[in-house]
Amino acid sequence: MNKDILKLYLVTDRPLSLGRDIEQIVREAVEGGVTIVQLREKECSTGEFVALARRLKALLAPLGVPLIINDRVDVALAADADGVHIGQSDMPYKDARRLLGYDKIIGLSVENFEDLERANAMDVDYIGISPVYGTPTKSDTAEPFGLEGLHKAVAMSAHPTVAIGGMNAQTIGEVIAAGADGVAVVSAICSAPSPREATKELWNVIKNNE
Amino acid sequence: MNKDILKLYLVTDRPLSLGRDIEQIVREAVEGGVTIVQLREKECSTGEFVALARRLKALLAPLGVPLIINDRVDVALAADADGVHIGQSDMPYKDARRLLGYDKIIGLSVENFEDLERANAMDVDYIGISPVYGTPTKSDTAEPFGLEGLHKAVAMSAHPTVAIGGMNAQTIGEVIAAGADGVAVVSAICSAPSPREATKELWNVIKNNE
Repeated sequence: MNKDILKLYLVTDRPLSLGRDIEQIVREAVEGGVTIVQLREKECSTGEFVALARRLKALLAPLGVPLIINDRVDVALAADADGVHIGQSDMPYKDARRLLGYDKIIGLSVENFEDLERANAMDVDYIGISPVYGTPTKSDTAEPFGLEGLHKAVAMSAHPTVAIGGMNAQTIGEVIAAGADGVAVVSAICSAPSPREATKELWNVIKNNE
Repeated sequence: MNKDILKLYLVTDRPLSLGRDIEQIVREAVEGGVTIVQLREKECSTGEFVALARRLKALLAPLGVPLIINDRVDVALAADADGVHIGQSDMPYKDARRLLGYDKIIGLSVENFEDLERANAMDVDYIGISPVYGTPTKSDTAEPFGLEGLHKAVAMSAHPTVAIGGMNAQTIGEVIAAGADGVAVVSAICSAPSPREATKELWNVIKNNE
């Protein structure tokens, strides 16, 4: 996996999309410059999840933008997505890899340095450093790494790194400057009045801090 | 698949287990005579779901009792369960079959006669006729088939049939007499003071009505 695809990583969130269509937000975000999309659905039925994943795959594949599915290996397999992102309480990594094979991308969230050391011993494709900052997006997250913790985590990681948690136009400059390979954005795109313009602004901040 | 395994079908339900351990309820139910177990988890993390499925598989496989996973093809694959049970809003049947192959059991819930006719055109292993009676277990279910509807559904079905919804010691006699190959029980076992004794009582009713 080319780690450049991690640069500006959109994570979808239905409640934070303010009633707007997920597919439309993804379309605008890609036009604005996101390099990879993670479909995250916590409430909908498996049938809806698979159907939406298929529509996003049809939208993203021709553009060369990978589609990652949060947690659900079955949905990723059914929709032939490019991979999954798993957290510490999701399916164990080795099971996910066995089911998906090595042609698929698997990212793993690490919530502390112990998680990170364990991830270093796995052949995951990237890690999500989660959360870097406190965030209203998720209420169940661990103690934030903070910028200093992020520096340390990036230095320690054997894998490409994506920073998540509190990523917006004000924060991503220092995060990219700290050496993260990418930033994972949720509300700064999903809740923006114009997801396209918000993404362009984020992309400019990244370019100015590389 | 030998349809005799469908005879007394336990569907687990965490809230209806009244705080008791799912594994313990399943163990007692198997001692009492259930012939197949469906693990249904709606709230827990994928990691917990996989871990519990593995423990149940280790418990059930030596006893020759199949383990079916509700909805989650990924959990079934990770734990090498014997199959999945899917509803009308879960993964489409053809995707589930493609991912699981023909060595695994796939059951499909039908909520009306149109669903049943569509199921007749599929190579599912059994259908769940759902619900036969109104039930407090699920609030999102369709209009009940009733006993007359069950008779008709059993006659129409190209596949073995399991009746679900309101199955207890008072109702399963007439359901078995109506020709259903099995009854799927939730609260009558999961909420029973003694799941073992409750299962034995259900088993006796089945034997007296075959």
